[in-house]
Amino acid sequence: MSTFKAKIYVTLKPSILDPQGRTVERALSHLGQQASAVRVGKYIELNMEGERAEVEGRLSEIATTVLSNPVMENVRWELEGA
Amino acid sequence: MSTFKAKIYVTLKPSILDPQGRTVERALSHLGQQASAVRVGKYIELNMEGERAEVEGRLSEIATTVLSNPVMENVRWELEGA
Repeated sequence: MSTFKAKIYVTLKPSILDPQGRTVERALSHLGQQASAVRVGKYIELNMEGERAEVEGRLSEIATTVLSNPVMENVRWELEGA
Repeated sequence: MSTFKAKIYVTLKPSILDPQGRTVERALSHLGQQASAVRVGKYIELNMEGERAEVEGRLSEIATTVLSNPVMENVRWELEGA
């Protein structure tokens, strides 16, 4: 049994409008900062215990079914630890 | 003038309670999945144009003053591109 740290990145698919990103873009513009294509996603960290192969399987399931919506979002993850 | 892609990661400071993370943890537990220390942060992508040194300065300012709250959050960023 080892403890692993998972980092999960959830982003809206490119074809999905991102109103939050648009708002950030406008706010930056009003502050005199130029940035484009602003997209706001989620970054999730969690710890899991077990054997690496088994933890990878559970993480894959969690990431694709619970932490992200496969219709609208892309998800990728990293697993760190022993 | 080059175009750079910035990736910004915003996380709550460890001493700050994360109710969203607690909720995810409980939801996972109800689904029979064990995970601990769940923390939910933000992941922001944006494009910026200019010379690298100047873009790095602007990105640092945006990340620390607009995209994150330095009282409650940590922020780190990466800059990719020509």
